[in-house]
Amino acid sequence: MEPKVSIIMGSTSDLDVMSKSAKLLDEFEVPFELNALSAHRTPEDVEIFAKGAKERGIKVIIAGAGMAAHLPGVIAAMTPLPVIGVPINASLSGFDSILSILQMPPGIPVATVAVNGALNAAILAIQIMAVSDGLLMQKLLDYKENLKKKIVKANIELSEVKYSYKTN
Amino acid sequence: MEPKVSIIMGSTSDLDVMSKSAKLLDEFEVPFELNALSAHRTPEDVEIFAKGAKERGIKVIIAGAGMAAHLPGVIAAMTPLPVIGVPINASLSGFDSILSILQMPPGIPVATVAVNGALNAAILAIQIMAVSDGLLMQKLLDYKENLKKKIVKANIELSEVKYSYKTN
Amino acid sequence: MEPKVSIIMGSTSDLDVMSKSAKLLDEFEVPFELNALSAHRTPEDVEIFAKGAKERGIKVIIAGAGMAAHLPGVIAAMTPLPVIGVPINASLSGFDSILSILQMPPGIPVATVAVNGALNAAILAIQIMAVSDGLLMQKLLDYKENLKKKIVKANIELSEVKYSYKTN
Amino acid sequence: MEPKVSIIMGSTSDLDVMSKSAKLLDEFEVPFELNALSAHRTPEDVEIFAKGAKERGIKVIIAGAGMAAHLPGVIAAMTPLPVIGVPINASLSGFDSILSILQMPPGIPVATVAVNGALNAAILAIQIMAVSDGLLMQKLLDYKENLKKKIVKANIELSEVKYSYKTN
Amino acid sequence: MEPKVSIIMGSTSDLDVMSKSAKLLDEFEVPFELNALSAHRTPEDVEIFAKGAKERGIKVIIAGAGMAAHLPGVIAAMTPLPVIGVPINASLSGFDSILSILQMPPGIPVATVAVNGALNAAILAIQIMAVSDGLLMQKLLDYKENLKKKIVKANIELSEVKYSYKTN
Amino acid sequence: MEPKVSIIMGSTSDLDVMSKSAKLLDEFEVPFELNALSAHRTPEDVEIFAKGAKERGIKVIIAGAGMAAHLPGVIAAMTPLPVIGVPINASLSGFDSILSILQMPPGIPVATVAVNGALNAAILAIQIMAVSDGLLMQKLLDYKENLKKKIVKANIELSEVKYSYKTN
Amino acid sequence: MEPKVSIIMGSTSDLDVMSKSAKLLDEFEVPFELNALSAHRTPEDVEIFAKGAKERGIKVIIAGAGMAAHLPGVIAAMTPLPVIGVPINASLSGFDSILSILQMPPGIPVATVAVNGALNAAILAIQIMAVSDGLLMQKLLDYKENLKKKIVKANIELSEVKYSYKTN
Amino acid sequence: MEPKVSIIMGSTSDLDVMSKSAKLLDEFEVPFELNALSAHRTPEDVEIFAKGAKERGIKVIIAGAGMAAHLPGVIAAMTPLPVIGVPINASLSGFDSILSILQMPPGIPVATVAVNGALNAAILAIQIMAVSDGLLMQKLLDYKENLKKKIVKANIELSEVKYSYKTN
Repeated sequence: MEPKVSIIMGSTSDLDVMSKSAKLLDEFEVPFELNALSAHRTPEDVEIFAKGAKERGIKVIIAGAGMAAHLPGVIAAMTPLPVIGVPINASLSGFDSILSILQMPPGIPVATVAVNGALNAAILAIQIMAVSDGLLMQKLLDYKENLKKKIVKANIELSEVKYSYKTN
Repeated sequence: MEPKVSIIMGSTSDLDVMSKSAKLLDEFEVPFELNALSAHRTPEDVEIFAKGAKERGIKVIIAGAGMAAHLPGVIAAMTPLPVIGVPINASLSGFDSILSILQMPPGIPVATVAVNGALNAAILAIQIMAVSDGLLMQKLLDYKENLKKKIVKANIELSEVKYSYKTN
Repeated sequence: MEPKVSIIMGSTSDLDVMSKSAKLLDEFEVPFELNALSAHRTPEDVEIFAKGAKERGIKVIIAGAGMAAHLPGVIAAMTPLPVIGVPINASLSGFDSILSILQMPPGIPVATVAVNGALNAAILAIQIMAVSDGLLMQKLLDYKENLKKKIVKANIELSEVKYSYKTN
Repeated sequence: MEPKVSIIMGSTSDLDVMSKSAKLLDEFEVPFELNALSAHRTPEDVEIFAKGAKERGIKVIIAGAGMAAHLPGVIAAMTPLPVIGVPINASLSGFDSILSILQMPPGIPVATVAVNGALNAAILAIQIMAVSDGLLMQKLLDYKENLKKKIVKANIELSEVKYSYKTN
Repeated sequence: MEPKVSIIMGSTSDLDVMSKSAKLLDEFEVPFELNALSAHRTPEDVEIFAKGAKERGIKVIIAGAGMAAHLPGVIAAMTPLPVIGVPINASLSGFDSILSILQMPPGIPVATVAVNGALNAAILAIQIMAVSDGLLMQKLLDYKENLKKKIVKANIELSEVKYSYKTN
Repeated sequence: MEPKVSIIMGSTSDLDVMSKSAKLLDEFEVPFELNALSAHRTPEDVEIFAKGAKERGIKVIIAGAGMAAHLPGVIAAMTPLPVIGVPINASLSGFDSILSILQMPPGIPVATVAVNGALNAAILAIQIMAVSDGLLMQKLLDYKENLKKKIVKANIELSEVKYSYKTN
Repeated sequence: MEPKVSIIMGSTSDLDVMSKSAKLLDEFEVPFELNALSAHRTPEDVEIFAKGAKERGIKVIIAGAGMAAHLPGVIAAMTPLPVIGVPINASLSGFDSILSILQMPPGIPVATVAVNGALNAAILAIQIMAVSDGLLMQKLLDYKENLKKKIVKANIELSEVKYSYKTN
Repeated sequence: MEPKVSIIMGSTSDLDVMSKSAKLLDEFEVPFELNALSAHRTPEDVEIFAKGAKERGIKVIIAGAGMAAHLPGVIAAMTPLPVIGVPINASLSGFDSILSILQMPPGIPVATVAVNGALNAAILAIQIMAVSDGLLMQKLLDYKENLKKKIVKANIELSEVKYSYKTN
């Protein structure tokens, strides 16, 4: 079973956040790989990885990094595949990571999600692949339906909170 | 007893903050309803809610949300009722939520209060209804009088703090 | 004809922005007054104004100010009427004014709108009065209908922009 | 010829920025549509648009908006298609728009690009479609090759800048 | 013994920070008073306080407040005495309080110190009074001399930290 | 006639802003001196200046600087006189200068005013000297009275702005 | 004459800023080279450049870039030479560029200077080489001496600014 | 054994951060000294230190400080040696310290590293000295090689994290 999504992180300390991507892909039964590669410490490995990803059958790359987070942009520079960037809050509330990933120059986009938004990165990866995969699209529609149920259930819980003048 | 104020929150995790609105309305004996609705997960329910609110007798809507907080603005887009937005600090110190609620484009205002300012949201809702409700106005004046007493009492407590050169 | 809305600004240099409130109220045929009062230079006049506003029949106050914008909050402290605050961009992109108006402490809300958002302040004032004024409510619904027409018209304009591969 | 990409903007004042998306798609010979829809002024039209996009054959949506930019997130809530958000600098240097688009809650991602980054939004849209379109992928590789030539040409220009101690 | 410095805070929750002002004045044997007054909850008391301060022999006022911190500016508007503002970190890392105190408009300065900088506020108050009080000036010079000793002592402690290649 | 206030700026490019201090002091007939000294380029001159200021009869120092604005703090470290810091907007909207001047560590306060607030710096200097100078205090009270007149005059101008529904 | 300093910029639009580095090196008679290389568009060229720099006799690299400025960090990852980063203000007041260059993770420092601070980057490069080059050190001392003269001259100019109460 | 690097900090409370510089220099067997000196409390000692550093054989200075962090810039003003500045997060997430150190005016650079980046400061110091010290350069290359091994090892750890659809 060949991986379709590649999850990369700058260091294993990012695993707590990035494992949310892995779990969601698992839930959708999408084969993926999980690697730690550093734009700054192992640039050659990043290059080999990025340049070979398309040939190996990867469809989308999810890259998470903190601080001056160059990893997503550096990978995007070396592959034509869509790269999703996850800013990780490691300092300055994550503002450094957000801006380092989001503000890519003309020519090399990174699809940036919210700070620590690894779950959304995986959903976005699935949305991208579902463009040409009807089965995955159906799973996505089911998933969205479930999100609704959760908020409807939350609303029912709220209806049980009692106040004297609460009328619903 | 029909609700006059509707308190909406994006998820039940916002209840800790938003319950301050509920308690204040209770204290003022203003009937209200409390719901969890998500601009992003249950947009149809938000629409039904927002479009029906006026007909059901709601006078003011209080909507709290965090991160990219679209809920207050989305509701404001679908009702002529005044909408009070409560930015909730869920990330980035709440700056994302403040700006997502406050910076509404021309035509669709949201009356924004301080980050986590659910208590003030309820007071503002009461001020709005008191414009045409003399009884509520009187309660509001009493409430303000009480606020003064608290700070006067605080001052008395301070007068008991001892320092060698403190002279009051 | 007694004014129902009072527009206050910290200095006449704010008139460029605040006149958008005046024009919108004019369009809605809502009688209003327009004054320059400074929380810092004429505090006594602010006090007389704020304490007398309700008795004079004012229903809503719109207060615009820049920098350390205390005017809306200081007025809110001295009246039970709803106070709408308009942050004016006079320095630091308007961040100083936004935070000085928005972040009011528990007990004294200011209904804050976007930076330089004087138009929205007037719409919000009308929404507040329309809670108990059916005629004004109807005008508001008409106004919202017109906003839609403008964006629909904008869309028609866009349909005339030509590109080789544009298909609508 | 059916459109594959849909470019949406909150108002025609965003056209200056968003036309960069249109031109790039034209250059790649990708059929697209161009519309102005407002999350706040025409929410029903946005809903019809978002819910029908997939059925009409749209593969990717590019949505640009300024200030409290809800449009991309509101659309993402109502379609399973990937939505690319373009923050537009209309106030506060664009920080309000960036945070309103980027910081989406779990479940509903928006693929955010740099402030005013409409060119990159179109490249990202092409990267997404190229995942399952070999011809488009080839055009993308050619485009990237051209980017390199531009910077190589820039370097040659620099080599002609003269300083006494410049040695290349 | 008449107070020469008046320390004001917006609420007793600010006492933890503001007591640093009190302790320093005590150490300098400068008589002071300590009050809780709220620009928003007890504006009349603030006015009576501010307008009477000079007549009662107060030389300098130290005012601390958090969030939309209007207290220092409101007092400065009603007295010719120098007012020192202490921004208190109650939300948003204290940025709201800093800007609300610092960015006073032309005509009404507030001498602002660092966030939570109540100690420095008291030193500044002493510096102001020492301009015309030789005895206080001498104490100030002694105090500064002591600060030096502390850092010299700190340096001696550092000299005892051992590393293989540390040579001092 | 000996100078009582010393105005320092980091470079002559700051004169546009700092001349507002000079003009106000002139208006109050307070003798002052005006110098350009750089914390970074002429540290020895700064030291000679700061250490000698008190002996030469200076009562208050006003120091303006931009970027990493060390000048006010460096002077404050070498004199017991009160130092007023004026952040000058030379980059980053002045945030760098504000924080470099305001956030002084315990022991060495700088009385910081608004960005580019050289006028207020001079008023503050006068307030400080007026603590022990009845004549100056009287001028200050007159000045404040004039500020009121200006805003009252502004209000009269506003009363002449015509709108159909304006009623004052 | 082999270049000792290499100035790199992300695009020729950065030349206005980066030419300040070139001019200063010229003034110090330090041989340098000037290139445009893009971390994102020509990553292979950046790699060849970075890995070969030391062997070609380069002692220090100065790299300027705007937005998500990865160039300095990417180069630093591939050379043991000291890399000086110049954040260029191309958007968001330069905050994106500052944080993308400054906030490098442990192991790979970039010596960051002020936004648009290309002049200082060149001085820093000279300071670094002067550690082992007595002649360059002497030029540096002369340069610093000249800076003093400029500020002393500025002070003389200020002494000619006339005010009635100016006494120096 | 004479020290080659001098580590300075503004107070001993900075030792937790700054000891990372010391440990790295120890690991590289570079002799260093460690001192606490305050730009504001012991300016004379700072001057003696800074002016004598070169003569004592110091090659590079590392200076860490928090808040309005003037220490690195003040030292840089009084020595031709390269000065590395370490912003320390003591308030406002470290933004005050970053800007106070980074934004130095033309003529006096400080080589700034990430907030709390004392480890990187030491590496940068070694890179600077390695420009003319082949042995140190070799150690640096070995150190960089080790960094790679750590990330490679991290990657192996990740390969052992199990998910159903993980394929590497």
